[in-house]
Amino acid sequence: MPPKGFLFAGVNCGIKKEELDLGIIFSPTPAEWAGMFTTNAFKAGPVLVSQSKVQNKVRAIIVNSGIANAGTGEKGIRDAEEMCRMLGENLGLGEDEVLVASTGVIGKALPMEKIKEGIGKAIAKLSPDAFSLFARAIMTTDRSPKIVERELSSAKGKVNILGIAKGAGMIHPNLATMLVFILTDAKAPGELLKKYLKEAVDSSFHCLTIDGDTSTNDSVFLLANGESGIEVGEAFRKVLGEVCLELSEMIAKDGEGATKLIRIKVMGAPSRDTAREVGRRVAISPLVKTALFGEDPNVGRILCALGNSPCPIEPGKIDVHLGGFKVVSKGTLIDFPYEELKGYLANREIEVNINLGMGEGAAVVYTCDLSYEYVRLNAEYTT
Amino acid sequence: MPPKGFLFAGVNCGIKKEELDLGIIFSPTPAEWAGMFTTNAFKAGPVLVSQSKVQNKVRAIIVNSGIANAGTGEKGIRDAEEMCRMLGENLGLGEDEVLVASTGVIGKALPMEKIKEGIGKAIAKLSPDAFSLFARAIMTTDRSPKIVERELSSAKGKVNILGIAKGAGMIHPNLATMLVFILTDAKAPGELLKKYLKEAVDSSFHCLTIDGDTSTNDSVFLLANGESGIEVGEAFRKVLGEVCLELSEMIAKDGEGATKLIRIKVMGAPSRDTAREVGRRVAISPLVKTALFGEDPNVGRILCALGNSPCPIEPGKIDVHLGGFKVVSKGTLIDFPYEELKGYLANREIEVNINLGMGEGAAVVYTCDLSYEYVRLNAEYTT
Repeated sequence: MPPKGFLFAGVNCGIKKEELDLGIIFSPTPAEWAGMFTTNAFKAGPVLVSQSKVQNKVRAIIVNSGIANAGTGEKGIRDAEEMCRMLGENLGLGEDEVLVASTGVIGKALPMEKIKEGIGKAIAKLSPDAFSLFARAIMTTDRSPKIVERELSSAKGKVNILGIAKGAGMIHPNLATMLVFILTDAKAPGELLKKYLKEAVDSSFHCLTIDGDTSTNDSVFLLANGESGIEVGEAFRKVLGEVCLELSEMIAKDGEGATKLIRIKVMGAPSRDTAREVGRRVAISPLVKTALFGEDPNVGRILCALGNSPCPIEPGKIDVHLGGFKVVSKGTLIDFPYEELKGYLANREIEVNINLGMGEGAAVVYTCDLSYEYVRLNAEYTT
Repeated sequence: MPPKGFLFAGVNCGIKKEELDLGIIFSPTPAEWAGMFTTNAFKAGPVLVSQSKVQNKVRAIIVNSGIANAGTGEKGIRDAEEMCRMLGENLGLGEDEVLVASTGVIGKALPMEKIKEGIGKAIAKLSPDAFSLFARAIMTTDRSPKIVERELSSAKGKVNILGIAKGAGMIHPNLATMLVFILTDAKAPGELLKKYLKEAVDSSFHCLTIDGDTSTNDSVFLLANGESGIEVGEAFRKVLGEVCLELSEMIAKDGEGATKLIRIKVMGAPSRDTAREVGRRVAISPLVKTALFGEDPNVGRILCALGNSPCPIEPGKIDVHLGGFKVVSKGTLIDFPYEELKGYLANREIEVNINLGMGEGAAVVYTCDLSYEYVRLNAEYTT
């Protein structure tokens, strides 16, 4: 069940030829919200505009795909504000109650007339069930929409959580961006949402890397409109974490050209942050990623990537397993059953387990392999 | 002319099937030397062994290709020492007068018997002209040997400098490594060599990135045996810089799967280090590299990579040119003649000029594009 009190729409407004390219979420009841945004210095207009509303309650979100409204300077900010104003006007909301996100080509200006018309069309179609159309309207090179639904039951009643994401990497070609929308009818103060979202994002989307780049438009939104009437705490925190993790894995699996989901588990680090840093270093190595695409037990590349980690490591303490196969003991490669390990690497999901032998810090980093298709998508796509 | 007083050999010792895989450099006159080595925490045995001799004068270098002797623990160190001992014994030198380097597959043990035989074979062939055989003997996936010869004339006479490099990236598949040997008959104290080499490497090999990884075996050696009898200063410093730069460009052009040499020039940075950091961030972006492979003027990707730089930048101050075409003004993409720019990107050498508008720091970073061939080389190569 989608969370109570949210309406959705996804339409084509003409930025793309035929595919859906404009999405709206509307909660007639004002929602508490929390957001996390790209750390890229080139923040897109819509990011700056949504970020500025972090103190407000909000009632709607407008999202377009096809053009990222990034690298567009002052005009980009004005266009993002105008999107909020136009939607607000049509729904009888203040501009400050509307959030905005964009994803697509960097450097192009938005066709504001088309968006204006699209808004009218979308409003006419708002419905509680149209979240899958919304999920489609925000896609760029995604192969499929990414939706996670969860229900949280307690003696007091039921709370629903709906997560919708797009992105085939922390960045796309110049169809940039990871966008995530998590909606719930739970009742929770904004401060709690912020705390929970930060935690959940830290162990999910922040542990996800496709190609090491962070887009100009990345945004994660969490809205709680309280329509269930149920106040939430720890149980919600846990489910929110699961929703973010599941969406992260969906994004990694759908990474550009990806043929495998790769989980890099780092244990024995001095701290959790170090564990994540080390895992990321392995996850972004094109040599590790191409080896896994080739289903080649090329363990030396993993060691090499570990050695390049910006965090201090002690080579002589490191153990590495690929799935259940131990391949490095105390920093030295050991014999392993080559054919069996190659068999393991033929799976669609691969685990690289690294024990640094230094402490108690642990983290999991999610990524995918690097294939011909990645190069094709990114070289042949023409601006 | 090769520098006076150096003898070379390159032979096959059986690590590889038929190709040359063992190289020797011998200077009967003890040479002052300076070395710079990988920062990777997993330093290979030969790196640790050569590094330990930084206070000595040296007379010989032994290098094998095919096996990197990395990820091999204590045994790897002992094998590297043994290589020095064996060559020293054969040439009547102390073990401490011999440097060692290896490049190739990580995690395999060296076939010491074969190397022993190879040493005998190589010594029998030592000659001043065999440097091109040496250059071949250290190759792994290089498409061609990399040799630069320079002569430095002054009223006092002539000094010769010979640079030999291998590497198609800061790291290779698991045929790891960049190795550089620079030999001169100039007379110079070790301290001066260290200073000059550090400077030269800082603006050349340290500004080179193929895939963002630094191998376990990277080493740069500079040996001066003084045979010309001529003491050198500023003029030598300059030529040494040029030799390093030329070898760097050769390596970038020969990057795995590379079709283009890309020079990323960053100006207007707060410092030179910042300029280099920012340039590197652009150079390692797989999105920028695939776009350039596709000859696609995808400027948004450059902006996005800039925005991900770990150094503070001010988006509103940034100008970007591709060759002579201005594409970003004050952080905003501007119209450019699309077809003409596409024509420019069809060249074999591309310049990306970035002005951060913040200060006087400048640096050039060298890289190559990311092609299907890169994926093929790294995915299909089997351990």
